[in-house]
Amino acid sequence: MRFDIITVLPALLESPFAHSIMQRAQKKGLAEIHIHNLRDYASNKHKSIDDYPYGGGSGMVMQIEPFAACIEKLQADRVYDEIIFMTPDGVTFKQEVANELSIKGNIMILCGHYKGIDQRIRDVFVTREISVGDFVLSGGELPAALIVDAVVRLIPGVLSDETSALSDSFQGDLLDAPVYSRPADWRGHQVPNILLSGDQAKIEQWRYEQALERTKKRRPDLLE
Amino acid sequence: MRFDIITVLPALLESPFAHSIMQRAQKKGLAEIHIHNLRDYASNKHKSIDDYPYGGGSGMVMQIEPFAACIEKLQADRVYDEIIFMTPDGVTFKQEVANELSIKGNIMILCGHYKGIDQRIRDVFVTREISVGDFVLSGGELPAALIVDAVVRLIPGVLSDETSALSDSFQGDLLDAPVYSRPADWRGHQVPNILLSGDQAKIEQWRYEQALERTKKRRPDLLE
Repeated sequence: MRFDIITVLPALLESPFAHSIMQRAQKKGLAEIHIHNLRDYASNKHKSIDDYPYGGGSGMVMQIEPFAACIEKLQADRVYDEIIFMTPDGVTFKQEVANELSIKGNIMILCGHYKGIDQRIRDVFVTREISVGDFVLSGGELPAALIVDAVVRLIPGVLSDETSALSDSFQGDLLDAPVYSRPADWRGHQVPNILLSGDQAKIEQWRYEQALERTKKRRPDLLE
Repeated sequence: MRFDIITVLPALLESPFAHSIMQRAQKKGLAEIHIHNLRDYASNKHKSIDDYPYGGGSGMVMQIEPFAACIEKLQADRVYDEIIFMTPDGVTFKQEVANELSIKGNIMILCGHYKGIDQRIRDVFVTREISVGDFVLSGGELPAALIVDAVVRLIPGVLSDETSALSDSFQGDLLDAPVYSRPADWRGHQVPNILLSGDQAKIEQWRYEQALERTKKRRPDLLE
């Protein structure tokens, strides 16, 4: 699986893909992540990629020409299954979208900045607009990193313990039950006795009840 | 405003805070971001901070002792307004939460990993549990970076153009209207004529209508 991320801040994305699971996925050849500097596709001598919005107003708008040049250069080399634009007005990212994307081959991600990108980029090139939530960020870089992380960990072979990914919150319908590890007594705070009982059937029953209760309390919408 | 982030992957968080708005906020003295390596607080010689879950099952659990040691060391130096745990079963992060956090002084953020953290850390230390959305990630580092970005950009003086932050999606009740910049004609794709008219009242009316229509179509829940 291959990701191409187009950004004005390539340096910002250096460390998130260089460690831990993302690093291992790339070393194993299961994922390729390429970061492209949008400024390399600016045609003017100042390497500017934004300009004032038509109709006035505050903020700068990312222009269509540098994006078009970069996208079309990449498309000349391979077919992309998706060209995703990270934007707060996109479809909210959920686990189902991550699952869907994890079976694709080549994905391009465009990171917005400033006031937004020229609407024609969205109309002409973008196949999917994704938001990571109802909040405003400085740019689409961290959301892009989030999506790549959520998708890459689903590729078979990336996680060492595949059952662990399957029992995560949101892969089922319930939130996770509480977990505990040593010591059994920490300054008087005890691990629930049932977990020390060795009775696996009772433990699974307790975990199910705890997961159900936590979901009812915190996220009743997941049970609807 | 000060953030202390506790993580097993401090290197993963190097680049997101070292550029652009986050870098400027720190240089201006408006935000301090400190990353702490949880392994420095492990008491065993292997520097391990996780162990098997009581009651069995897959995945490792982050133990209470290293977290307690790090949190209590930080608390000895200053009072924290919030100790936030990033977790998929927390309260979904929204702009209102960012606004709330932006007026705090000292915030600690704990990043989870593996199967989760010992429940007693949550019971004893954590004041707020936040999720960035209904999807599974490798750890709490990118969500922590997201939250710091969303909060820091609200601190007065961080953005050069404050009106720009105020007119972003989610600070009002509507999504943004489409934006356009030069050229007015790109391979036959034109900028809407109204934006070239110079009639500011009509432009504002058009933008309002576009924003309303986009919100109705994409996010009717925001209008309820």
